[in-house]
Amino acid sequence: MTIKVGVLGAHGRVGQAIVEGVNAAADLDLVAEVGRGEDLQVVVDNEAQVIVDFTQPASVMGNLEFCIKHGIHCVVGTTGFDEEKLAQVEKWTAAPGAGHVLIAPNFAISAVLTMVFARQAAKFFETAEVVEFHHPAKLDAPSGTAIHTAQGIAAARKAAGLGAMPDATEQSLPGARGADVDGIPVHAVRTRGMVAHEEVIFGAQGQSLTIRQDSYDRSSFTPGVLEGVRKIAQHPGLVVGLENYLDL
Amino acid sequence: MTIKVGVLGAHGRVGQAIVEGVNAAADLDLVAEVGRGEDLQVVVDNEAQVIVDFTQPASVMGNLEFCIKHGIHCVVGTTGFDEEKLAQVEKWTAAPGAGHVLIAPNFAISAVLTMVFARQAAKFFETAEVVEFHHPAKLDAPSGTAIHTAQGIAAARKAAGLGAMPDATEQSLPGARGADVDGIPVHAVRTRGMVAHEEVIFGAQGQSLTIRQDSYDRSSFTPGVLEGVRKIAQHPGLVVGLENYLDL
Amino acid sequence: MTIKVGVLGAHGRVGQAIVEGVNAAADLDLVAEVGRGEDLQVVVDNEAQVIVDFTQPASVMGNLEFCIKHGIHCVVGTTGFDEEKLAQVEKWTAAPGAGHVLIAPNFAISAVLTMVFARQAAKFFETAEVVEFHHPAKLDAPSGTAIHTAQGIAAARKAAGLGAMPDATEQSLPGARGADVDGIPVHAVRTRGMVAHEEVIFGAQGQSLTIRQDSYDRSSFTPGVLEGVRKIAQHPGLVVGLENYLDL
Amino acid sequence: MTIKVGVLGAHGRVGQAIVEGVNAAADLDLVAEVGRGEDLQVVVDNEAQVIVDFTQPASVMGNLEFCIKHGIHCVVGTTGFDEEKLAQVEKWTAAPGAGHVLIAPNFAISAVLTMVFARQAAKFFETAEVVEFHHPAKLDAPSGTAIHTAQGIAAARKAAGLGAMPDATEQSLPGARGADVDGIPVHAVRTRGMVAHEEVIFGAQGQSLTIRQDSYDRSSFTPGVLEGVRKIAQHPGLVVGLENYLDL
Repeated sequence: MTIKVGVLGAHGRVGQAIVEGVNAAADLDLVAEVGRGEDLQVVVDNEAQVIVDFTQPASVMGNLEFCIKHGIHCVVGTTGFDEEKLAQVEKWTAAPGAGHVLIAPNFAISAVLTMVFARQAAKFFETAEVVEFHHPAKLDAPSGTAIHTAQGIAAARKAAGLGAMPDATEQSLPGARGADVDGIPVHAVRTRGMVAHEEVIFGAQGQSLTIRQDSYDRSSFTPGVLEGVRKIAQHPGLVVGLENYLDL
Repeated sequence: MTIKVGVLGAHGRVGQAIVEGVNAAADLDLVAEVGRGEDLQVVVDNEAQVIVDFTQPASVMGNLEFCIKHGIHCVVGTTGFDEEKLAQVEKWTAAPGAGHVLIAPNFAISAVLTMVFARQAAKFFETAEVVEFHHPAKLDAPSGTAIHTAQGIAAARKAAGLGAMPDATEQSLPGARGADVDGIPVHAVRTRGMVAHEEVIFGAQGQSLTIRQDSYDRSSFTPGVLEGVRKIAQHPGLVVGLENYLDL
Repeated sequence: MTIKVGVLGAHGRVGQAIVEGVNAAADLDLVAEVGRGEDLQVVVDNEAQVIVDFTQPASVMGNLEFCIKHGIHCVVGTTGFDEEKLAQVEKWTAAPGAGHVLIAPNFAISAVLTMVFARQAAKFFETAEVVEFHHPAKLDAPSGTAIHTAQGIAAARKAAGLGAMPDATEQSLPGARGADVDGIPVHAVRTRGMVAHEEVIFGAQGQSLTIRQDSYDRSSFTPGVLEGVRKIAQHPGLVVGLENYLDL
Repeated sequence: MTIKVGVLGAHGRVGQAIVEGVNAAADLDLVAEVGRGEDLQVVVDNEAQVIVDFTQPASVMGNLEFCIKHGIHCVVGTTGFDEEKLAQVEKWTAAPGAGHVLIAPNFAISAVLTMVFARQAAKFFETAEVVEFHHPAKLDAPSGTAIHTAQGIAAARKAAGLGAMPDATEQSLPGARGADVDGIPVHAVRTRGMVAHEEVIFGAQGQSLTIRQDSYDRSSFTPGVLEGVRKIAQHPGLVVGLENYLDL
């Protein structure tokens, strides 16, 4: 039995990649493609069980209210959720018969696993650093994902009772030791030709462990989105972060 | 309160590294160093709570029987355990007041985590390959650790219902695609100067995840051994594999 | 002063990337785009000084004869040249006023430099191995580039009087040590999501040197083609291989 | 015919590694080992043709004056040479029958080649960054080798007429983009377990080239020192930098 899927924001670049991904999956059935400004009623009429929303912060709340109330589950990659909006979505999902919601800042399965493994590994190593690599047109440094990864490592170190990392540096050029994110150095490399890559380097006596994630093109979020579509029926209410779906 | 530790095989290269590690740890107290052919009674007389055994297959069973019966826990890196010997050790540990036993083929925490993470990640990726790098004096290819890693990936793929990996290769030089370990290609590189290194490469649409472990010298097993010493009191009976102690 | 450029095979995928590259270069002027079956006379009429040919083996010889005789230089990425065809091209270029020709099997500057540096480094290291990574739809393993790289290393070792590499392997699974290309082990990894990547690993006492090339998309040959266009006026006759243009 | 070699500073850690290296080389004959404060006359008495000096800044000038005047060639890894001292050494080597001198800040062949290749590659890429990795007991960041590498890249870019590298970063945490060495970002990672490692990352359209050097232990300078010993007879006067001996 296949799952009936609707795609909102279907005509954008990301939406097109999801449409292709759903069409290529034998267990998923694409029943609705909705573009900007088009009527959402089609997802109800075509009996979509799950919708995928990669639209705009300005439209996503309306989309979610409509779908949740119709009992349709929502896999959401649109950005711009603050605490207040999350609370509102959670309230909607609490109603009887309401649709479930997954909101994730990053659907690239390799990036999500890098963060999860980094948090798991952190307590076993004396040192941890993050190096991320992106194309030189990127506006922020370090990337949000790298900052998030470093914060997770820092929290895991703290929970395990680890103190500050050893670092004997006395003589240094400004910036050489990277940005300090909760005590974890984070380095941002900008290289023409690269897309989005992250490396977490842990060190202990006589050894190191490196977890590296490479995104080669924009379609890298597709497998994670499809994973969300397949599992959302088992996760009532609001869930934030794909890692909660992974059954590790 | 410190833990009182005895080291068996204390005069060998590995034993010396452990002796140094125990001495450097504030929460551990070295109370006995036993060399080949020396009397084990010293570990009882000095009230060792845990012994570490990196000796020989010919002597380890005798060491274990003696220590377990005296209620002393045993952290064991000595090789050569078959099913029969493991059953015997398990029987000894079942007696009232018996010492606990941890037997691990690999105590390098980075290598153990690589295997654990590889098994966790396997079900999310279409392809998985293992590349290991060692010095050219190594006798076996691939390494036991790489084979073990590949077997874990293969088992995880099977459990998740994944079939054979895609591979369109039609024209190939013999050996180019590596050794086949339960369907996972494993490649062994032999490079002067390197010590022991392993890389697991997972691929999915538009992305890859690489988990890499580097051992730079023989002391790399020390942190894992000390982890075993600290936690063995909480793990009754026989446990095989350091991963079972890691609380991931 | 700009260089006037014509592109043959302009409507194919590769041709389009070159058209974009020429258009984006301030020192180059695109004067002709010729598709399959269209009349070449346009490159003469529009006074092209250099043409780029990424067409088919069946048409490239006719294109070259025409352009060379009109004194137009030719940068050629089309495949299928054997000794006989190369000899014919060389003869055409020997005439007074003839156009110059550059034929290269690989225009990705990072791949070309990897081969060049590998040949330079080979004599200083005891061991050398090649690992290449491609998408699983690739038909041949190892890649032609990896074989070519290994052959270059083998030739450099031989010229320096180096013998067989050390390798103590006694117990091995078939394929673990890779394909043997003139004594150099070559390993081919097939990973979903990757494009085209090559790593050359040299080892000597206490150290290793790794040269790695990553191609992330099809446009990676463009900078090398433009380099060829800019320099071909200084290289009379037939030159095979972009490395001869690099002034290292 | 073997080359007769004397080792000064023979009882230090580095000296011992060189003694072992000379002893292991079939074409070299160890004729003198001189420790701190011992009489240099033994290198003359035993007819050393080349000496290796890994001693102290306070003693190296005296050693060089003595050996050069006796026509003995000197391979020197001792640090602390300023312009004045180099001028003095050069003057000594200009005398008839004087010994030749090679002074090199780094004898690890993999590190030297990384610098050489980085300079060669620089003009072909839009972007270049350096990441170095050392143990956390290192006092300076970035390493001298990394700074030297970045300066070489910057000089090569300037010579080729390349301008500033593209970097759209608008929003940044302090230090994220590394230290600025003549316009080249340099990042220093400090990881327990690592020794000395350097990575140079070049980027161009659709591709990247990475040159990486790993030093696993202190003996990594030995092959470079022996290369110096073998070739110094062909290089009269004073030469600074092993790269000048490599015949690339």
